[in-house]
Amino acid sequence: MDEHRVNVGMVGFGTVGTGVAKLILEKGDLIAAKTGIRLHLSCIVDTDITRPRPVSIPHGVLTRDLNALVKNPDIQIGVELVGGTGAARDVQRKLLESGKDVVTANKALLATHGSELYDLARAKGRCIAFEASCGGGIPIISSIRAGLAANEIQAIFGIVNGTSNFILSSMTAKGLSFPEALALAQKKGYAEADPSLDIGGGDSAHKLAILASIAFGDEILLEDIAVEGIQGISHDDIRYGAEMGYSLKLLAIGQKSGAGKISLRVHPSFIDKESELARVDGPFNAISVFGHAVGQVMFYGRGAGMMPTASAVVADIIDVALGNSAQVFKHMLIRPRAEASGRIEKIDDLVSRFYIRVMAKDEPGVFAALSRILADHRISISGALQHEGTGPDNSVPVVIVTHATGERNMAAALKELSTLSVVSGKPVHIRIVDIPEDRDG
Amino acid sequence: MDEHRVNVGMVGFGTVGTGVAKLILEKGDLIAAKTGIRLHLSCIVDTDITRPRPVSIPHGVLTRDLNALVKNPDIQIGVELVGGTGAARDVQRKLLESGKDVVTANKALLATHGSELYDLARAKGRCIAFEASCGGGIPIISSIRAGLAANEIQAIFGIVNGTSNFILSSMTAKGLSFPEALALAQKKGYAEADPSLDIGGGDSAHKLAILASIAFGDEILLEDIAVEGIQGISHDDIRYGAEMGYSLKLLAIGQKSGAGKISLRVHPSFIDKESELARVDGPFNAISVFGHAVGQVMFYGRGAGMMPTASAVVADIIDVALGNSAQVFKHMLIRPRAEASGRIEKIDDLVSRFYIRVMAKDEPGVFAALSRILADHRISISGALQHEGTGPDNSVPVVIVTHATGERNMAAALKELSTLSVVSGKPVHIRIVDIPEDRDG
Repeated sequence: MDEHRVNVGMVGFGTVGTGVAKLILEKGDLIAAKTGIRLHLSCIVDTDITRPRPVSIPHGVLTRDLNALVKNPDIQIGVELVGGTGAARDVQRKLLESGKDVVTANKALLATHGSELYDLARAKGRCIAFEASCGGGIPIISSIRAGLAANEIQAIFGIVNGTSNFILSSMTAKGLSFPEALALAQKKGYAEADPSLDIGGGDSAHKLAILASIAFGDEILLEDIAVEGIQGISHDDIRYGAEMGYSLKLLAIGQKSGAGKISLRVHPSFIDKESELARVDGPFNAISVFGHAVGQVMFYGRGAGMMPTASAVVADIIDVALGNSAQVFKHMLIRPRAEASGRIEKIDDLVSRFYIRVMAKDEPGVFAALSRILADHRISISGALQHEGTGPDNSVPVVIVTHATGERNMAAALKELSTLSVVSGKPVHIRIVDIPEDRDG
Repeated sequence: MDEHRVNVGMVGFGTVGTGVAKLILEKGDLIAAKTGIRLHLSCIVDTDITRPRPVSIPHGVLTRDLNALVKNPDIQIGVELVGGTGAARDVQRKLLESGKDVVTANKALLATHGSELYDLARAKGRCIAFEASCGGGIPIISSIRAGLAANEIQAIFGIVNGTSNFILSSMTAKGLSFPEALALAQKKGYAEADPSLDIGGGDSAHKLAILASIAFGDEILLEDIAVEGIQGISHDDIRYGAEMGYSLKLLAIGQKSGAGKISLRVHPSFIDKESELARVDGPFNAISVFGHAVGQVMFYGRGAGMMPTASAVVADIIDVALGNSAQVFKHMLIRPRAEASGRIEKIDDLVSRFYIRVMAKDEPGVFAALSRILADHRISISGALQHEGTGPDNSVPVVIVTHATGERNMAAALKELSTLSVVSGKPVHIRIVDIPEDRDG
């Protein structure tokens, strides 16, 4: 079989870069046999070229000089693994301007400057491939774009941040507090020293912006996405939710509403504990995609880590080398912002069910007072739970699950609840997300 | 955006064909906007052109004459949805010989005559795309070939026959007998009047032959695959297995062994009831793929039905139209049969754990006799369970779970067990499959 040799340059030689180098150097024969593409790692650019890495790099490949890549016309593909939105943006621009196709895992950059970079790539007749930006080694981008190409995508529900999922799973399974679970995640290497992008929902929002753009064909900005993290989650609420049949997950949701609008949000979500996504534990990712023809399709795997992410990066390199990415990129449907922005539903307009918990004095008439306020705001109760006193001043947790109601109603009701003299502290509210299970009847 | 018009001809206008026509006719604008491909359904060939179908076909498109497709040089892609291995083979040959690319959902044909058809396609410079042959709407073929291209695939564990999974799920959840569950599947349209290909494991074997060929790069023949169906399964064994922590699934397994051989088999399998595949209920499919870099990736969705299968067919049509399929097909690694056949492990050489049940007289010394025979065959017991008598002659079910042992050992032990005077009927044995969970430690 004839082989097509492709020269690859890489910028950023950290964890994922090391994995990419390993795959290209150690599995080159396998890849050539499977795909007809013979990958050649021409150069690796990094500021640190002395630190030992667990892969043996041929002499002369490692350099501090970005120009060794950018100015080398024999290199067809540039892989940007710098990360972040600063230097990485400059790197991608230079790669595209020098006529190279770009492969990247940089969700933060694509979520914030994707449109600028896509435009530049198109102007230069190049493409950007970014399978590794979402879901680690799970082929979710190509599946949505190609595998489900004949579908009108109706919704995406994703557990796309392994750190948060590990923390919530640990709180659920081991009864840990949030700080304990975070410390465990850090100890195991799943959370960084500054975990704010993961636990605050920002990383999930980056990925949702990318997934929703390709699924719905609209230019999605980060500001379109309502984001709440898991920092405030108490183990008590996970436990009470479980008693009522729910599992708590940090979900990234992109969903078409009846009115043709798209709801985009990242927030802690109680979901039916029998649902597929409820069973995704530890640092794993899973993404359920609903298409009008295919129904529900779920993709599950490791959403991060050296080799899973490298697997996606190298798959993209091959896809670019085969010319497939160029075809798909050329026709990537992204409606102009002017058209897209009118289609984004504001979080204030969201209607959903809610789990609420207040710490209330254990005395007669309390439940009546609470339910009176909800009724005043036209919020209907579908279930309730009261436990023995555990809070300060012998207060007891009163948990209420509501029928569907608007965000504004709920905000107003919560505000009024917190003013009740029998209520101590701020009421907790967590949205209940009804994933439209594509179940057998 | 410029559109590329592609003329499509289809042979076979049954359930899936109707879905394909609906997608092309009703979602043509969406597909063109997403992919740049404007699909035109030029002709549909079927022996029955009068039966009403739930899609409105333009005048002149429907015909009984295959030549209207084959002899029309303006049609680039032929979709074969005839099914089976007779007429369909002739249709695919004619399509390829007339210079058309082929898209098909026909697993039976590819599993039995794939090599002949692939050779013909290559000789004619054409390609065959068959995403819809496995897993319905789940993009499993493209994910293994492209998304996981940088991986050495270690194993595939698939629930790939929705009929069997529905039957086993119903037996498990509702306590139905096999005949009752089969009747329910037929009533719901999940099983055909003659269900033998589904419940006998043949359909799963067809799909495994295709999946394993692309995953491992060897030409797999049906005769390489050991096949057992679910016809003989008793609800009692599902119940006893559940008590010991297992769920029963009909699995299609392709797995590399330590010695570089590949084990290929379809059989009822007890798997850990906490594993991802154990939770796949009803008529759904799920396929776990293990790659050396990516770890476990699981794909879940509807494995059959009009629109899910049509979703995959139309995705393939688009992929062929974009030229991507030709690239991938050209480089599809299939080692010649001479090389492949030495790599297939015989089922007799398989080592696995077993669930066994014998109906034995409820009298002293029985368990000692049973365990003596197992010990004589060097089979070690890891667990046992004895219930109150339910069988004929006041016999009681004795359930034993073994440590790993060879098939030959087990066959010899079972033979000897059945000769014991205290044992009535034939001992039941079901393999326990340890899916290498890619779990967080």
